[in-house]
Amino acid sequence: MTLDPIQLSADLIRCESVTPVEGGALQLLERVLSGAGFQCTRVDRNGTANLFARWGDKSERTLGFNGHTDVVPVGDAAAWTHAPFGGEISDGILWGRGATDMKSGVACFVAAAVDHVTQHTPKDGSIAIAITGDEEGDATDGTVALLDWMDANGERMTDCLVGEPTCPNTMGEMMKIGRRGSLTAYFTATGIQGHAAYPHRAKNPVPAMARLIDQLSNHTLDQGTAHFDASSLVATTFDTGNPATNVIPSHCNATVNIRFNDAHTGAELTTWLEAKAAKMAEETGIEFAVRVTISGESFVTQPGYFVDMLAAAVEAETGLKPELSTSGGTSDARFVQKHCPVVEFGLVGKTMHQVDEHVPVEQITQLKSIYARLIKDYFA
Amino acid sequence: MTLDPIQLSADLIRCESVTPVEGGALQLLERVLSGAGFQCTRVDRNGTANLFARWGDKSERTLGFNGHTDVVPVGDAAAWTHAPFGGEISDGILWGRGATDMKSGVACFVAAAVDHVTQHTPKDGSIAIAITGDEEGDATDGTVALLDWMDANGERMTDCLVGEPTCPNTMGEMMKIGRRGSLTAYFTATGIQGHAAYPHRAKNPVPAMARLIDQLSNHTLDQGTAHFDASSLVATTFDTGNPATNVIPSHCNATVNIRFNDAHTGAELTTWLEAKAAKMAEETGIEFAVRVTISGESFVTQPGYFVDMLAAAVEAETGLKPELSTSGGTSDARFVQKHCPVVEFGLVGKTMHQVDEHVPVEQITQLKSIYARLIKDYFA
Repeated sequence: MTLDPIQLSADLIRCESVTPVEGGALQLLERVLSGAGFQCTRVDRNGTANLFARWGDKSERTLGFNGHTDVVPVGDAAAWTHAPFGGEISDGILWGRGATDMKSGVACFVAAAVDHVTQHTPKDGSIAIAITGDEEGDATDGTVALLDWMDANGERMTDCLVGEPTCPNTMGEMMKIGRRGSLTAYFTATGIQGHAAYPHRAKNPVPAMARLIDQLSNHTLDQGTAHFDASSLVATTFDTGNPATNVIPSHCNATVNIRFNDAHTGAELTTWLEAKAAKMAEETGIEFAVRVTISGESFVTQPGYFVDMLAAAVEAETGLKPELSTSGGTSDARFVQKHCPVVEFGLVGKTMHQVDEHVPVEQITQLKSIYARLIKDYFA
Repeated sequence: MTLDPIQLSADLIRCESVTPVEGGALQLLERVLSGAGFQCTRVDRNGTANLFARWGDKSERTLGFNGHTDVVPVGDAAAWTHAPFGGEISDGILWGRGATDMKSGVACFVAAAVDHVTQHTPKDGSIAIAITGDEEGDATDGTVALLDWMDANGERMTDCLVGEPTCPNTMGEMMKIGRRGSLTAYFTATGIQGHAAYPHRAKNPVPAMARLIDQLSNHTLDQGTAHFDASSLVATTFDTGNPATNVIPSHCNATVNIRFNDAHTGAELTTWLEAKAAKMAEETGIEFAVRVTISGESFVTQPGYFVDMLAAAVEAETGLKPELSTSGGTSDARFVQKHCPVVEFGLVGKTMHQVDEHVPVEQITQLKSIYARLIKDYFA
């Protein structure tokens, strides 16, 4: 049996699975995987659809794959030159939402895995595929739910590949062996409302917050570490909502997002942010409150046999030695890393989340070959 | 004829004249003034109702009075202990929106003027009363329209009293001989939108604006002048409206309000603000735009016969020598000062614009006596 990853990618694109809608995408995968002998279980939680599929025995050494079938909204539908859910192929290009992020990645691994188990039955191994319907949204009941269910049911992965697009421009140039952590801090400054003509009778929170944001934005967190770029801090918004030009407002809010490397932890940065706010409160007489949500700690899968095996597969199929990167945003690898060693490799991500998302079909063929080689080597 | 200013104040409060609604207030004044021999003209413009009333000949030396019958909204009507438009008097207190700002002030001058012209016919003088229905709003078609109409019709005031509440706590303690200027600067900072995980690919306008607001807020404009307090600068709002914590926004806005004394002009401050924004643009690579609206230049009516006459009337009736102040917000005196010397004296303003606005009726009686004495002395 040889499964065409291009056709499967196009079929998946035709499922309108904008987060959190399942859209038939997981049902399609379940049919395909069941047909090849995978044991499939829907692991839905709080309205989020997830699919777990295993080939072989769970006591065996297991190669895991994690991905998602949900996609971000199409944005301005009228601006697309090809229907976003059409799965249209023309001049060697597959068009549509999810073409790179990451329906094609899922299709490639599923196709490679189906080929492998139907052609070369692994003698002493097992394959586990954990696909979520919510990676682009809050992700609280997506891959986390799959991992919780696996824990509860004695299901393990020995190593895991995440199929997110990892190549900035050229197929094969980059894989990810870790991710920076991410946290968001929500600041509120509270003063005393008053008339703009009588500032001595009021306490204006706006300049105090402005000074805090200026200070935080100009602070150097670190210079980078062995596997990581420097951490970065970004003030994403500052809001007051005071329409009256003759009124000093009582409140204002600002939000700061930090992408941090392994020189920091979320807890340590939270303490630092709280201390900066407390110092500004002391300096200005304005009350500050700060609430921090940590979406993920930084992590790195140290180079070793699994990283090397994937890098070798990429190099064999593309001729490029992939950079072992930890750059970029977060992915569900931040959840998987608590479970087992995880690496990420996938398509060129240039058009992801954009209008006219698309992928050359030859890159899909190439990606399936890379994944097929990894599977073969893993069970060799 | 003796007109009761307390009754007239209560009747005016019962007119629901929240800006820009006339609410019957000017109609009531027109009836009262016409009945006493004033020649009344409605000077309405673009939906704003205004009333001009003259007693005597316009070629004569003219004592002018300027005030407004519009009021600010009641806010939380349920929080009032007396109906905001009830004009209720209990235990010597008159309650309602406009009780201090400034229906009672209008009532006191009208009552004093009616008494005077009906009892002591001024031999060689005239009284002009210019009442607007929009002082609390944009004020573009209020007192300005009255002054325009007066110019066009050869109507002049030799000196003008504005009846705004001027006393902070005690009747008689303060009159105003000028006002600070006021301008509002609207800043927009424009960068390049991007993903919070890739700040080097974006240009964040938020920290640049934060630094500008910090700098402006900490700048000392001056230390005050002979008749004025120090100028003040207030950042009234800072807004971005970016709900996504993983997105660097492309724009943010901030607004700054400056109350300035006679050490500055609106034009000079505008140039300064533009230069500060340009410097920040150079420092940060963020584009800045600034739009300035000048609601009024500073002005002062130098102490002289009219200021002295009003101060003497206040002292005779209250026993207090009023401070000659230029503090506080703006008033329509900023328009009148272009036309003739203007001073302001009125009630204790403590509850203006608040829930349960009220005034002790004895203060109304006292204010009418002060105005009556001024009129008598002016024509003596």
